[in-house]
Amino acid sequence: MRQSQLFTRTRKDAPKDEVSKNAQLLIRAGFIHKEMAGVYDLLPLGLRTFNKVVNIIREEMNKIGGTELHLSALQRKELWQETDRWSDESVDVWFKSEFKAGGEVGFGWTHEEPLTALMREHVSSYKDLPAYPYQFQTKFRNETRAKSGLMRTREFVMKDLYSFSKNEDEHQTFYADCADAYERIFKRVGLGELTFKTFASGGSFSKYSHEFQTLSDAGEDTVYVSKDKKIAINKEVLTDEVLTDLGISRDELSEEKAIEVGNIFSLGTRFSDPLKLTFKDENGIDQPVIMGCYGIGPARLMATVAEVFSDDKGIVWPKEVAPFHVHLVSLSGGNKDIEKEADRYYEMLQENGIEVLYDDRDARAGEKFADAELIGIPVRLVVSEKTISAGGIEMAARTNGKGILVAESDILERLTAQVTSNK
Amino acid sequence: MRQSQLFTRTRKDAPKDEVSKNAQLLIRAGFIHKEMAGVYDLLPLGLRTFNKVVNIIREEMNKIGGTELHLSALQRKELWQETDRWSDESVDVWFKSEFKAGGEVGFGWTHEEPLTALMREHVSSYKDLPAYPYQFQTKFRNETRAKSGLMRTREFVMKDLYSFSKNEDEHQTFYADCADAYERIFKRVGLGELTFKTFASGGSFSKYSHEFQTLSDAGEDTVYVSKDKKIAINKEVLTDEVLTDLGISRDELSEEKAIEVGNIFSLGTRFSDPLKLTFKDENGIDQPVIMGCYGIGPARLMATVAEVFSDDKGIVWPKEVAPFHVHLVSLSGGNKDIEKEADRYYEMLQENGIEVLYDDRDARAGEKFADAELIGIPVRLVVSEKTISAGGIEMAARTNGKGILVAESDILERLTAQVTSNK
Repeated sequence: MRQSQLFTRTRKDAPKDEVSKNAQLLIRAGFIHKEMAGVYDLLPLGLRTFNKVVNIIREEMNKIGGTELHLSALQRKELWQETDRWSDESVDVWFKSEFKAGGEVGFGWTHEEPLTALMREHVSSYKDLPAYPYQFQTKFRNETRAKSGLMRTREFVMKDLYSFSKNEDEHQTFYADCADAYERIFKRVGLGELTFKTFASGGSFSKYSHEFQTLSDAGEDTVYVSKDKKIAINKEVLTDEVLTDLGISRDELSEEKAIEVGNIFSLGTRFSDPLKLTFKDENGIDQPVIMGCYGIGPARLMATVAEVFSDDKGIVWPKEVAPFHVHLVSLSGGNKDIEKEADRYYEMLQENGIEVLYDDRDARAGEKFADAELIGIPVRLVVSEKTISAGGIEMAARTNGKGILVAESDILERLTAQVTSNK
Repeated sequence: MRQSQLFTRTRKDAPKDEVSKNAQLLIRAGFIHKEMAGVYDLLPLGLRTFNKVVNIIREEMNKIGGTELHLSALQRKELWQETDRWSDESVDVWFKSEFKAGGEVGFGWTHEEPLTALMREHVSSYKDLPAYPYQFQTKFRNETRAKSGLMRTREFVMKDLYSFSKNEDEHQTFYADCADAYERIFKRVGLGELTFKTFASGGSFSKYSHEFQTLSDAGEDTVYVSKDKKIAINKEVLTDEVLTDLGISRDELSEEKAIEVGNIFSLGTRFSDPLKLTFKDENGIDQPVIMGCYGIGPARLMATVAEVFSDDKGIVWPKEVAPFHVHLVSLSGGNKDIEKEADRYYEMLQENGIEVLYDDRDARAGEKFADAELIGIPVRLVVSEKTISAGGIEMAARTNGKGILVAESDILERLTAQVTSNK
């Protein structure tokens, strides 16, 4: 994309009311726009990175048998009353409204109820199970306090997968598969080493649930971690009993702040019982379906990456989620020959499948370099009078900023490592 | 995808309260689920077709210079008061709610206001224009009556593009480009011959807007059409003055019911004036930005295709928007050799980039054929004892249902024409 056609601008300062580092960086670099507290728009650069995160999650969900669908945001009161999750006393994050035609309607903050009800029409026999529907869908949550930038918002897309299994064994196998898929996702977006599968509170149907916590001072959660043993425990469940369960002592654990980037939860028959989702087993006997739910918020994940991978100049995107592979900067100073040469590189890179943000703007070198650092694309290529007379192009990694001259014949090979994915 | 893993089932009858043909067909074939009146979920098959429509629209919007972003649904009251579109007296489709933290919030039914406000931060000079941001984003509309299936819903994804131009000439050029792009979109989804660019009421800033109307008895609109002259006029604006403007007489026009599948609208300074979106021209003088808006609802388009292309057995998808290219039906009757052969075809087709729904279910031939007809994938391939002994596979087009035996060596070539797009 030509930067002259990218209508967003970078800015020196974030809005004064924006205290979180992730939102400050993403706003300054032109990835997001703050609509109001806890509500953000995705600008073109932000949408590109968001979609890369979404596609990584989608690939990993498909690998473990997930099937994508898309449920509505509008929710029927009568359905949620059946599970006792309609009233404001039982659930404190509902946004509710009134139909012009009469009656209350809710805006979905999660989707166990409608999906369980929907599955009643498609599941009747053991042959219909297991099923793993998932979606990328906008949740609305009426949070009293929305701070922390994109970490806690009132409107956000969630990847929510729900598992429908015949029995506890089948459920546990998928639960473990999904945990593995989550590990792959966090590794692919660049957060593998900082992210820990964390024991958290379960519910009526299992002792524990699991969160995936990325260590960061910006986190709202406190976890106790043994990096050696790869064990982490949410503060909420840190008891002697849990330590004994996990065979670890308090001394081995360090207290850390962390961002919850995902969670997986066994639901048992919490929803299939009240909503009467059953199947006939091989003996023709009605059995309740065993459920689980599995969530990741792609925008929170994007924000976590920005929060963790940044320096005093801006964001430093890992290649898998960068909005573009390469930032091509033309320093033509109005010289048409240099412009032509930069145009030629732009075409050539794109023809070879490399995603290029091409800074073709009529602007000073200092402004272009500062923007490139703020936006944080992994590789910067510079075309200037100097590089042309030296017979090549200047290449610099965003991680260290050191420019080296690369001959044109070598540039594609040099870029390959940057573009190749971590799959 | 293996049909055994597609958890949705077809059904003989649509819900009793569903009167529209498009929703009846899409529900029976397992493409959508009715959550409540005017609110539908996209099931896996429906999401696939929906995404194909979205991608066609996205390609055509990118071709004319569109840049994709994504705005929030939650809307700030104070902003909409500036254009006098907050009150229920001025706009009768708002869903509104209350923040727990206090204050009213709206759910966006269109996005002129937030986008115009956002652009103030990115547009200041003539160098920043034109700009053509667009999105695929969920609108909420509190319709008093929601009928007509997916034609008029309370929640739907809309492709809405907004143009920001320096002057009327630049605006008109883009307006014409977008009209052409819309013609290409309707052609690509298979509705080209039935769809007419239609004169409709303008507003304060232009005499006409344009709708794109697909002729169908299921339509809510009445249009007057000359198929010879390719002129169509919405009943709302059919006056002697308009006939004179267009150089056509009433006798040349026939009255038709039609579905509005898209619209384009010149906004002039209706929003840039109150929201103070201006730019400095080449002489440093402040000028208001000239705007336009351009909408298509991909789900309505999908429903229109289903409504128009169907027979008494089910849907007949055009290849460009079919959920899969090929429906591979295995009639193994439990014979492992036949199952293996069908598996082999499934792998081979997929390796060659063909999207296959593979009916590997343990079900009767009659049930499989009826499902294939209802779902409406353009090409059906059958593997059975008979086809194997004849040394090939049976191929039938959904349009006529006539099966012919094709040798395995010919199958890829025969399918190519079906898979190639109309781009």
